[in-house]
Amino acid sequence: RTAADTPSTDINLAVIAGDGIGPEVVDEGLKVLEAATAGSGTKVSSTAYDLGAKRWNATGETLPDSVLDEVRGHDVILLGAIGDPSVPSGVLERGILLPLRFALDHFVNLRPAKLFPGVESPLAVERVAPNGIDFVVVREGTEGPYVGNGGSLRTGTPHEIATEVSVNTRFGVERVVREAFARAQARPRKHLTLVHKHNVLTHAGHLWRRTVEEVGAEFPDVETAYQHVDAATIFLATDPGRFDVIVTDNLFGDIITDIAAAIAGGIGLAASGNINPTGEAPSMFEPVHGSAPDIAGQGKADPTATILSVAMLLEHLGRTDEAARVEAAVAADLAERGGQVRTTSAIGDAVAARLS
Amino acid sequence: RTAADTPSTDINLAVIAGDGIGPEVVDEGLKVLEAATAGSGTKVSSTAYDLGAKRWNATGETLPDSVLDEVRGHDVILLGAIGDPSVPSGVLERGILLPLRFALDHFVNLRPAKLFPGVESPLAVERVAPNGIDFVVVREGTEGPYVGNGGSLRTGTPHEIATEVSVNTRFGVERVVREAFARAQARPRKHLTLVHKHNVLTHAGHLWRRTVEEVGAEFPDVETAYQHVDAATIFLATDPGRFDVIVTDNLFGDIITDIAAAIAGGIGLAASGNINPTGEAPSMFEPVHGSAPDIAGQGKADPTATILSVAMLLEHLGRTDEAARVEAAVAADLAERGGQVRTTSAIGDAVAARLS
Ligand SMILES: CC(C)[C@H](C(=O)O)[C@@H](O)C(=O)O
Ligand SMILES: CC(C)[C@H](C(=O)O)[C@@H](O)C(=O)O
Repeated sequence: RTAADTPSTDINLAVIAGDGIGPEVVDEGLKVLEAATAGSGTKVSSTAYDLGAKRWNATGETLPDSVLDEVRGHDVILLGAIGDPSVPSGVLERGILLPLRFALDHFVNLRPAKLFPGVESPLAVERVAPNGIDFVVVREGTEGPYVGNGGSLRTGTPHEIATEVSVNTRFGVERVVREAFARAQARPRKHLTLVHKHNVLTHAGHLWRRTVEEVGAEFPDVETAYQHVDAATIFLATDPGRFDVIVTDNLFGDIITDIAAAIAGGIGLAASGNINPTGEAPSMFEPVHGSAPDIAGQGKADPTATILSVAMLLEHLGRTDEAARVEAAVAADLAERGGQVRTTSAIGDAVAARLS
Repeated sequence: RTAADTPSTDINLAVIAGDGIGPEVVDEGLKVLEAATAGSGTKVSSTAYDLGAKRWNATGETLPDSVLDEVRGHDVILLGAIGDPSVPSGVLERGILLPLRFALDHFVNLRPAKLFPGVESPLAVERVAPNGIDFVVVREGTEGPYVGNGGSLRTGTPHEIATEVSVNTRFGVERVVREAFARAQARPRKHLTLVHKHNVLTHAGHLWRRTVEEVGAEFPDVETAYQHVDAATIFLATDPGRFDVIVTDNLFGDIITDIAAAIAGGIGLAASGNINPTGEAPSMFEPVHGSAPDIAGQGKADPTATILSVAMLLEHLGRTDEAARVEAAVAADLAERGGQVRTTSAIGDAVAARLS
């Protein structure tokens, strides 16, 4: 991996704070990034890009080519959240977030699910997950039903037909499956579960299945399993400890990573990386949660998901020790936090303080 | 509703026991059906159809037209489970189960989720569902990504492309949405949630959204809400009590009804009806679980899901009192059962005994 082979000295960051609680949580993420790298001789320089609802409302622009080109010139991207009720559904998602993932070829959408000590799960964990929850979902990020290959005919009439095409290629599936195997191999349990629905989506499903079988030959020490997506959701509720690494398509990944976030203590803690492992374009780190306009600007948002995304960002840059320190600081903070309600910046301050 | 307007005196039943545990659980379902209708003057006559893995292995047949025609001549269908490891994935699903749902136009796939007293949920219910779990999913059954409109090109080469097309029509969406509204209106809370992903699947999603808005005008007393499918799965884990009736597409419905089954005590209790509300073809009732070949023939399968499917069958035939009696007998049995392990037939016997 290019990025990992040459740990950067300076960090040249593009920041897309976005809408709603995005700016607040990103502020805390940056605070922690500064604290984690302080004294290392690293200079963190960041450029802010004002993409999101405000820009669209003012100018009708989503992601201008010139901005995309500038963003491309950075080492890495930190994103808060995109979306606002003032903008019709789909405009910012299909205009900013998904174009970033697609243009920068973020084919590995990495989403860890870990239940930290002291964090409450909606599950009766003592019964259903006595050994804890600690798995990672490798969600494909550039294909599947997300390609935007849909249309409608006779729209708005009784004869309307709307289609959505899931497009899956051997090239696209193979590269993400290989990444998932490599990640499974690097973990103690070395276990990989493919999640799909090949009994119904036979063409896409069999492509995924064959690819896992074939790429698996390169990783003889990794054990593989298969679950239909519907059955996988049952196990996520009744026996999440069975999972180590999950690899799945873009839409199934979207769904199961939200369940994963829920059972691991909530969307306020769920981090993610949109990774281009080739290093040919910057990877992008973002909390899984959305812009939560209802609580924006009130200091109520939990910045932990963004802070854990910063840990993933550091890890991606090969700064493994700093990444581990941030995660440990978050773990300690969560263990102490209990039922206590703290402001967004208080949480950022507390985590940053543990790093100095 | 045709079926409900003219409660049948005799019941002319097609039985497709199927594979694995299918025959065992269907036996108990039939036992309970006999017990529930005994003394009512009703004659239950049933014809068994040997569709499934055995027939496919012996003859290569899945669902011959002649069998489909015969099945069509019945009032109602009881199905156990279809699927066996001896048959390649997709063959029986796309050859028997889905053709039945599509040919008989089962556009309402009805799946209640109710946590019965005494049943253990994997959720910490006292915290996340203090007022219980009692909702019903109306899953569209004849469109979406289930239409079988996929293909692959350059199969098995590095240049393979596989597509799956989700097909959605105003006709198909409107009829299931109207049914869902009617069902919501008949429930005390009168609340309907549309689950989709219209920020990404914009064409299909907006068709669903517009249809819910427009059909909603016919049901002014029903309150509506919308959740993206990923967010819906979070709420199913953290606050399932918020749901009353959910309406959703075929694939999203497949996924969320498995989560729903899990949180309501497991797939061993989850009943379903594949309903053609026009009465032009027989509706089909089946447990949500599969054929579970690993425990087949051992008397370990829980027939409760099938017995509750029989209750839905009776309800569909307008035999409301009998349906309620079967459900009450199951509820009483579950409340008494506790952690006790009983055989398949012991459970059927116990429920049937409560009905005489
Ligand atoms: C906002 C939306 C387009 C996005 C997705 O569906 O990928 C989000 O749900 C996520 O999981 O990052
Ligand atoms: C067996 C399979 C084709 C089926 C489906 O996907 O509908 C099952 O999962 C279900 O939910 O009834």
